[in-house]
Amino acid sequence: MYAVILAGGSGTRFWPKSRELFPKQLITITGAKTMLQNTVERILPLVPIENIFVVTNELHAVETCKQLAEYGFNPDRLIAEPAGRNTAPAIGLAAKILSRKTPEAVMGVFPADHVVEDGDSFLNALREAESVALRGYLVTIGIKPTRPETGYGYIKKGPPLDNGGGSFQVERFVEKPDLPSAKRFLEHNGYFWNSGVFLWKVSTILEEIKLRLPELDACLKTLASTVAESQGKYSYRVLGAKGKEIYNSIASISVDYGIMEKSQRVALVPASVRWSDVGSWNALEEVSAKDASGNVFSSNVVSLDCSGSIVQGNDRLIAAVGIKNIVVVDTPDALLVCEKNRSQDVRRLVEKMNEERRTETKVHATVPKPWGSYTVLEKRANYLLKRIEVLPGEKLSLQSHRHRSEHWLVVSGAAEVELDGRKIPLARHQSLDIPQGSKHRLCNPGDAPLTIIETQIGETLEEDDIVRYEDLYGRS
Amino acid sequence: MYAVILAGGSGTRFWPKSRELFPKQLITITGAKTMLQNTVERILPLVPIENIFVVTNELHAVETCKQLAEYGFNPDRLIAEPAGRNTAPAIGLAAKILSRKTPEAVMGVFPADHVVEDGDSFLNALREAESVALRGYLVTIGIKPTRPETGYGYIKKGPPLDNGGGSFQVERFVEKPDLPSAKRFLEHNGYFWNSGVFLWKVSTILEEIKLRLPELDACLKTLASTVAESQGKYSYRVLGAKGKEIYNSIASISVDYGIMEKSQRVALVPASVRWSDVGSWNALEEVSAKDASGNVFSSNVVSLDCSGSIVQGNDRLIAAVGIKNIVVVDTPDALLVCEKNRSQDVRRLVEKMNEERRTETKVHATVPKPWGSYTVLEKRANYLLKRIEVLPGEKLSLQSHRHRSEHWLVVSGAAEVELDGRKIPLARHQSLDIPQGSKHRLCNPGDAPLTIIETQIGETLEEDDIVRYEDLYGRS
Repeated sequence: MYAVILAGGSGTRFWPKSRELFPKQLITITGAKTMLQNTVERILPLVPIENIFVVTNELHAVETCKQLAEYGFNPDRLIAEPAGRNTAPAIGLAAKILSRKTPEAVMGVFPADHVVEDGDSFLNALREAESVALRGYLVTIGIKPTRPETGYGYIKKGPPLDNGGGSFQVERFVEKPDLPSAKRFLEHNGYFWNSGVFLWKVSTILEEIKLRLPELDACLKTLASTVAESQGKYSYRVLGAKGKEIYNSIASISVDYGIMEKSQRVALVPASVRWSDVGSWNALEEVSAKDASGNVFSSNVVSLDCSGSIVQGNDRLIAAVGIKNIVVVDTPDALLVCEKNRSQDVRRLVEKMNEERRTETKVHATVPKPWGSYTVLEKRANYLLKRIEVLPGEKLSLQSHRHRSEHWLVVSGAAEVELDGRKIPLARHQSLDIPQGSKHRLCNPGDAPLTIIETQIGETLEEDDIVRYEDLYGRS
Repeated sequence: MYAVILAGGSGTRFWPKSRELFPKQLITITGAKTMLQNTVERILPLVPIENIFVVTNELHAVETCKQLAEYGFNPDRLIAEPAGRNTAPAIGLAAKILSRKTPEAVMGVFPADHVVEDGDSFLNALREAESVALRGYLVTIGIKPTRPETGYGYIKKGPPLDNGGGSFQVERFVEKPDLPSAKRFLEHNGYFWNSGVFLWKVSTILEEIKLRLPELDACLKTLASTVAESQGKYSYRVLGAKGKEIYNSIASISVDYGIMEKSQRVALVPASVRWSDVGSWNALEEVSAKDASGNVFSSNVVSLDCSGSIVQGNDRLIAAVGIKNIVVVDTPDALLVCEKNRSQDVRRLVEKMNEERRTETKVHATVPKPWGSYTVLEKRANYLLKRIEVLPGEKLSLQSHRHRSEHWLVVSGAAEVELDGRKIPLARHQSLDIPQGSKHRLCNPGDAPLTIIETQIGETLEEDDIVRYEDLYGRS
């Protein structure tokens, strides 16, 4: 069995924890792992890592590779979209690529940013669905509702496919209902939440695309033929120039709307699991432990008489007094305070900030780089202080700066610096001046992470004051 | 005329902007100056700086001297209390000290942490009050109410002292009223808010203390006789050991309760000014400009559909969605989110945090020092990063550390470092290693502020890992 993880997302709904460069699937919402990592771990018992493909935006490709490295994920299983076009094109492209070698294999499609508890029940449903998919069905996993949710689409089940089996025909798909309908669905017992998890044979979905989305079908062959290795350290798969042009011109359409709601061979396999698509901050209540007053507080919160509130932070002390149904999300460079039932409007807020060209919607204070990351600790008129973390074996580009000098101090690990042609080893406690205009390069030759404190001094201290001469990651 | 500014305060009600070491009078609430500075500027047209005395807690003496240096304030005019004992003892001690040279002078008493707008009207009221005080009255400045405030004490005026004059007898003092009473007072036109501003002759208040607070009176002579210069750079006035013992044993009592409400020679001078004692965060509404939705937002706030809220921060982006009547106060190391009508309970919250031994109630991220300040920019397992700012001409103690080495980099100004007996000049861009165990001292010999970035590396990185050999400020 193969899996295609759909790791799209724009990073707006969980701002400020999510950012354009770190959408929901790449951040931790519950527990210690990111949602993408949780998604991979959930299906690994059924699908070996070499059979797991990920489709994501080019912006998120490197971070996706880094997050999945610990599972032995090979970047050649990552397909980078030049732009999001909803689920049907991503699924079609992945299926086309799979069809070259394994046209009759079953592929499961998994959103990368959902929460599923009770993983064993989920796996059982997947096994059932796999067997149904092998019979030529488009199988959708339906989640047994636990509340009259108006934010999800529903599926009404039809008669069983087999007597006594765990799979059903689908009577119809239902758009997000109003509350009375949602209450009726909950009582009726025959309605299920549409989880966005699908299983089918590669050949089945390609036939259906040909039938129902002929324009997409017409593009897939060319698209797949332009797929090539990306430049740089992580050789994920990108579309060639022609492929990008085509992909950008494809209509955005979901597989639900484009195929599932119209197809004659759809089947439903119900799963009794706690599931949430965690669509906005208030959904944290569904997937987190609450205190006696219904609060979801992260550590380092001190409170008096609060109820129904969600307070999420890091190290900084957060004190809350008397708040009711308020969401507070604290990050190093931006803070959100939101009435809980207005959580959906965080998206509008992000749009407003984008119009104001605020960078806080794009990146966190810690900026990921192919070699590690940097964090601006302080910026003042004439100096800028950064923590630079270089992963073992990684190397920044050979570069120079026109307007600033730098001072590097190793606080953890050991560095090797190239400075105007000389190689200079730097141990912990040691420091080095990087004069303005000098060609320099920072490398972590060791097995442990390297952390340096960089102090930039100069008249202007802009990130784009950089000339790159050589680079491991294709950026020079 | 003399002035005694009462600069007490525990720093709880405006937490996290105020802290134990930075109570309300030492922080900015409105505008660019601190409340103490505003208080001094308000009375300077009437009282020369050499006639202004300040009574404050020893904890706040150095910061008070630093904040008033720009007005030419001489630290010998600052009287440091070993502990707060409410207003009567502070006033009695100041009066006793003044009585040595100018027993018949008028002294005005001014709380350091109130907001008064329309300074000219206030000065006119003070001039009127001065003339009444010279006739032997205890004069209180009453503020014409502008709303039915239940948080203030009231004064009911009696007949005029002189026909057509601006001063009145006092019929009675009224404790904080309930709302119906406050409404009645507002309509009646004869009630005034008790501002805590008093004027009287030094001899008059000392006679009244003798009459009404004989126990306090019995202590004053000894207290005043133990007053001496403090150690260190700012030679403010402290009580000797005996004086401290006595002061600590004095009963806490306000001059309102102990004297004004009982005395037969009290007079009222009304002032028509916008006034607030800014008793808690919600009072910011009284003294700040509001937007069309009744919000008081500092800069760097992005909002959608908020109303009646107070959001105060610094550089960090704060985004607010749909909040109503919420107070948000963001500081570098602590955040407060509070239902506006619960602002009074911030005090309870601080008590709770004190029980949990949280240091965020004591000091800000930037810690004031007699030589300048330091700010912890980042603390991690094995290093700690500080910005150290040294005022011109100042010098840290000669010191050593047992468990850490340090690395100093000058980012602004110029330093002179003493390291194991050698003097080392350090210009901007230059850095120096301070090995573990070495005797070192940092000095700013120039006219401009000195800023260094200090990186501490070691197994333990505690502030108390310090041995002081010499110190300008009496701390060795």
